[in-house]
This record gives sequence, C-alpha cells and structure tokens, in this order.
Amino acid sequence: MLTPLVTFLSDFGTADWFVGVVHGVLHEICPGVRIVDLTHHIPPGDIERAAFVLEAATPDFGAGTIHLVVVDPGVGTGRRAIAVRARDHVFVGPDNGVLEWALSAPDAEVREVTDVKLFRHPVSRTFHGRDVFAPVAAHLASGLKFESIGPVAELPLRLTVQTPRTVNGELVGRIMFVDRFGNLLTNLTEHHLAERFPNAAPEQFEVEAAGYVIRGLARAYADAPVGSTVAILDSSGRLEIAQVRGDASQRLGLSARDDVRVRLRR
Amino acid sequence: MLTPLVTFLSDFGTADWFVGVVHGVLHEICPGVRIVDLTHHIPPGDIERAAFVLEAATPDFGAGTIHLVVVDPGVGTGRRAIAVRARDHVFVGPDNGVLEWALSAPDAEVREVTDVKLFRHPVSRTFHGRDVFAPVAAHLASGLKFESIGPVAELPLRLTVQTPRTVNGELVGRIMFVDRFGNLLTNLTEHHLAERFPNAAPEQFEVEAAGYVIRGLARAYADAPVGSTVAILDSSGRLEIAQVRGDASQRLGLSARDDVRVRLRR
Amino acid sequence: MLTPLVTFLSDFGTADWFVGVVHGVLHEICPGVRIVDLTHHIPPGDIERAAFVLEAATPDFGAGTIHLVVVDPGVGTGRRAIAVRARDHVFVGPDNGVLEWALSAPDAEVREVTDVKLFRHPVSRTFHGRDVFAPVAAHLASGLKFESIGPVAELPLRLTVQTPRTVNGELVGRIMFVDRFGNLLTNLTEHHLAERFPNAAPEQFEVEAAGYVIRGLARAYADAPVGSTVAILDSSGRLEIAQVRGDASQRLGLSARDDVRVRLRR
Repeated sequence: MLTPLVTFLSDFGTADWFVGVVHGVLHEICPGVRIVDLTHHIPPGDIERAAFVLEAATPDFGAGTIHLVVVDPGVGTGRRAIAVRARDHVFVGPDNGVLEWALSAPDAEVREVTDVKLFRHPVSRTFHGRDVFAPVAAHLASGLKFESIGPVAELPLRLTVQTPRTVNGELVGRIMFVDRFGNLLTNLTEHHLAERFPNAAPEQFEVEAAGYVIRGLARAYADAPVGSTVAILDSSGRLEIAQVRGDASQRLGLSARDDVRVRLRR
Repeated sequence: MLTPLVTFLSDFGTADWFVGVVHGVLHEICPGVRIVDLTHHIPPGDIERAAFVLEAATPDFGAGTIHLVVVDPGVGTGRRAIAVRARDHVFVGPDNGVLEWALSAPDAEVREVTDVKLFRHPVSRTFHGRDVFAPVAAHLASGLKFESIGPVAELPLRLTVQTPRTVNGELVGRIMFVDRFGNLLTNLTEHHLAERFPNAAPEQFEVEAAGYVIRGLARAYADAPVGSTVAILDSSGRLEIAQVRGDASQRLGLSARDDVRVRLRR
Repeated sequence: MLTPLVTFLSDFGTADWFVGVVHGVLHEICPGVRIVDLTHHIPPGDIERAAFVLEAATPDFGAGTIHLVVVDPGVGTGRRAIAVRARDHVFVGPDNGVLEWALSAPDAEVREVTDVKLFRHPVSRTFHGRDVFAPVAAHLASGLKFESIGPVAELPLRLTVQTPRTVNGELVGRIMFVDRFGNLLTNLTEHHLAERFPNAAPEQFEVEAAGYVIRGLARAYADAPVGSTVAILDSSGRLEIAQVRGDASQRLGLSARDDVRVRLRR
C-alpha cells in the first residue's frame, strides 16, 4: 500500500543541506514516503511568490496529496503552524498567507498544529521545516487523521489577492510570474475571458501590455514566426504572453505586477 | 516487483514547478515509479545539447530503462510525439531530433504516440511533458507493450551529427560540451583513436586545440602539475581536455563547436 | 523491508548528468534504495566546504544512514577510497579529508575499500563516484557488512580544523559558512558558550564581527526590527549571525574564515 504523495515547496535553495534534511525527516517518520519537490528556489521569504506557485502547481496533483510548504520568515515567533484541508488535498505550513490557495477554497478546513507529540524534538527556533512542518506532513502521510492535528484555527492570515477588473469595457489583469522560458503568466484565465467576452473567437481578442498589442490568441507557442510575440491560454487555462523561441519578459521589458489588458478587436 | 527506472531530461529548469508536476503525473499513473532526474538545465529549446546529454548519460543505465525527454519548442504544433526502442532502452519524446542517440542505433524501432487513451486529459497545447510524454513513459513503466503505443513512425526527424574526419593525417573532431568542471568533452572516442592510430601508446599522442598543444594522454585528472592542461580518455571513453584543479574552458578560451586535432608526436 | 537511507553529497552540480548516473547505479545495485540528495553545489574540489556540510547535515539523520560523499579532485591517482563507521552512520568517500566529521569521532572505524568485486566495471580513471563509491554505498545499503569492504585503513588523511580559542577572556571563533539566506554560521556552539561563560543569560552576551557588535542572543530570526542584525543559536546549536529579513553576509561584508568574538557585556 503506497503512501500519499508529499510535495515540498520552500525557499531553501539547493546549495545548502536544508532540503535534504527535511527529506530525511519525512523518510524517518513515514517509511516509504514518496516525495515530489515542487521548487526550492522561491526567493527568501517571498510569501506571495510561493502562494502563486502553490496555486499554479497543486491542481495538477491527485486527490489526497499532501503539500508541505516552508516559506517562513517568522519562524520562531508567535506565528501559528497550520494545516488546511481543501480541494481534496491537505496543505501544511506557516500561518502567514502562503497557503492562500487552500484557504480561498469554499470547503477549506483549517487546524492549528498544536500537538507537540507530532513534532521532532527538541524543537528549534530557526528550522520548523525540520522540526514541525515536515513531521506533521509525514504523520499525515502515514495515516494520521486531519482532525488529530489540533483545534480549529480561527482567522488564519489571508493574502490580499488582486483580482481582475473591468475598466472601460476592457478586462484588466496583471502579470503574476515570469517562468523559466520568459513567458509572462497573468492572473487572467479562460473563465475570466469567457465571462467578460462570451462567444468571442480566439482571433477576436486583443491583448495589450506596456503599450504592446497582440492580436488574437495563438494555438501553440510556435504558432507564429520566430521572434514574434503571442498571447496564449496555457496548460492551466491561464493567459500567457510568450515570444516564439524567445524570452517575452526580456523582449517586452515586463515582469510581475505589470498590467495586462484584454479587449475585442474593433 | 520494482518498476523500470524512468529517467527524465528537460529544459524546464528547477525554479518553476514543471518538473514537480511531471513527477506527480508519473507517480499517479505508475504507482511505485522510480524516477532519476538527468538534468533539467538544458538551455530552453536547445535540442542539440539535450541530444548530447542523452548520448552521454544513457549508456550508464541498465537494460529496460525508460528515458523521458522533454525539450520541445514545437509543442502544440504538428510535430509528432514518438517512442524509440533501441540499445535495450526505450526513449519517449518529441520528433524533433532530440532522440538522435536512440534513432542512430541499427536496431532502432520508432513508433508514433497516437493512442489518446494513454494521455492525460484535457491535453493542453503548451505542456505535453505533463499531458503526453510523461503519461506514455509512465504507462510503459507500468508494463504497457511498446507496440501498443501507436503505429510505426516513418522518417523521424534526424539530427545532423558532425563525425570526426581525417585531414592531412590528423584526426579532427570538435568540442561537444563543457561540463561543470570546465572540462572540454569532444566527439572523439577511444575507438576513433584506436582506428586511426592503431597500437599507439598514450604518450605518443599529441592533442591540439586553438593552437594549444598537449603531449600524451594523462592517466588521471591530477596526473600532472596543478594548473597544467591534460588530455584524457574519460569515463565514457571520450577524449577530454582538462586543467588540473582548474577550468580548461576558461583557461583556453574554448567552448562547444571548437575544433580539436589529434596526431602522433614526431 | 526498507533499505537504509543513502544520502549523497558532491561537487557535481546539477547542470550535467553525473548525479543522475550515480542515482542509476545506486538503483541498479540496490533495488528499492532510498536516496536523499544533500547538495551537489559544493564548489569543484572544495573539500573543506564539503566536510562542513557533512558535519552540519548528517547529525539530523537517523542511525544506520549511509552517506555517499564524492568531492574527489584526486580521482584516478593513488588516493585511497575509504569507508568510515562512526556516530552510528557509515560514510563512503575518498581519503582526502572530506570525511573529517566521521574521522573525528572517538568511535570511528576506517576501512580501505579494496574489494574490486564491489566495483562497477570497467573502473574508469575519472568517475569513481559512479564506479567505486556509489557501488560500495549501494552494497552497504543492500546489507553488505562493513567489515567486508576491505582491511582497516591506517592513518586516514585528516583535515586541519581550527577550533575556537580564548583570547583576553573572549571566545574567538570563525565564520564557517554563509547559507542561502546570507546567515553567517560559525564554529561556535552552545557547548562552547556554556563552557566559557557558565550560567550566562542570553541577554548578557555580546558578539562582535568585523567591528560590528551585537548585544544579546535572539530567540528567533524575526525577534528584532526588520533590518537589524541578530546573533542566534541555530537549529544545530551553532552560533549564527543573521539579519532580520535580510542578508547578513552582504550587510556586514563578512564571509567564511572571518573571525567572530563572543564576550559578556560589561
């Protein structure tokens, strides 16, 4: 009988030994654990970026997956450790907003992690990834009931998420993330587009960012001449701006937080 | 009963979540899968470099290994997805030349991946690593017969590989790869040397690159004074140029595509 | 029955395929092996740094863990391959000082790896990670007795370790490592502090580095205003200098080998 998958997201980098030590704890508490590293290259303490990665990555995992999230600049202070059951997954991490994707679900149940018997002792003041969060994730992967973690946590810290808005008939979103390929991932999804512009065909759309206008939605990254810029609905149904065989972020000088506007062509 | 090893080679980098999502799909379709990451730091879309890494790395794996290769700038266009059975391994990836090492084998069998029942649905237009290639590799690891993937694929795209040549009695090859240590890996092997210069002793060789001449073949990286440059047959039987405790690429100003000449000393 | 954990530490980087190949060998010789990568970003040939990482990381692993260490600039020369049983763990690597943490244990037993039947053949002159060290680690993980590796190794190469000293009543140590977060890890531990300054309270300490004076020991990284510099006993009981939500190394211009002084406030 295989254990649930445990994904692991952190800002630990891979040059030090912190990720390895957390893997060791997971293996020790949950023999046979199956670990999937999402990424450990979140910039130190960048809660918003980690929250976005969690939102982008976790829908691709199956029901029952446990997500261990350690971006925790407040380690050792009074910030709570929490676990959230939502979207058929369980998320474990600090109560600092990084679990916003889980907390925003209508069915979210939040528990405070308080049972010290679950922890690795002695509990340090600087490495709760090793001493608190990984042990709890490992116990959950070993079959611990979600309710056994601790009492219901009231008022978990929420992240302010800027949602798309409509201005002068245009749908206005923003760039959330620049990926490895220089693609610009926005907070606009196919649902937003369908809601605002029902029945519009892909070629009717016009996407504008930093004064640069892209006509139509492409069907593939390479669906235009090399070097040209395309707008495309990506593998998560998210509007992306990409450059064919190039780096759109460098080409357009755009990065996270810049605005993107979508309208229909006249 | 353990499943075959699945190696994974891509240009995804490790700062985003794409590698993790592919691992998740492999685990979901093939519970108990054993994954070995070759590298994910192929420069975006660099098919030639990925083809070289595949050639360099895969001979070290045992029979039955499945190699998942996702360097796929044409994702979403008409390029085919293929699987190749060759050299006692199976390779899965796009039909863009990246599988040249497999295709160049005399016993290569090539199938087009067409059975949509094998895919992850809905199949996106931008992430076939997740939706097509990983699912097929996982089904193969779970025992799917190679022949069940789809029909024989005619005329797979081949990469132009520059083979060593003889010019004025010298063997002329080229640098293929600069590794982490600054070592210069060439396309010249011990077989090429033995064929062109039968019965020559290691100390008889002379290797020239960018006007720099190295006398004799070393027996170990450290088989010369610190700072000196050596030529050596490496762990794959490939001629390398290295600097003792240093970086030959920086020292000599050489990189991939530069010529290397081998002759016997007078 | 699960096999012991095998940790893996090297200077291979992750851009090439060397780590993957070593994983492949471990899987082939020890089916079901569980591998934990500590880090592969040790600078090429930096034995001291690798020795420090081993000391910092391995105490967090359980008894019976096998540690594979490949930082091996002398590969192919006469340097021996050794295995050390110490601190309830087994360490496998080159006899070049990188295993100092194991060798410094009072209970350390050292064996020279000489049984060629354990190796992967043919044994290359440039990649003993693949051909010697990984196979031996894998055989140990599969149940091979430590004593079967080879004869007792006399006089293993030891690393000169600079221990803290007392000067004019001050405890003088040094910075050993700058981690991902810019935290400065020293060679001063809570044991050194307790021994030199028995019964001192955290607020009585004064830590000085490069003329910069920090008063008191913090209880958490965030236990002071953002931007201020704190001294803290970290998750390994080691004195660290950190900047609250910042990078102490950049802020103070300090790095490995710089001195750190600890005294009591007047």
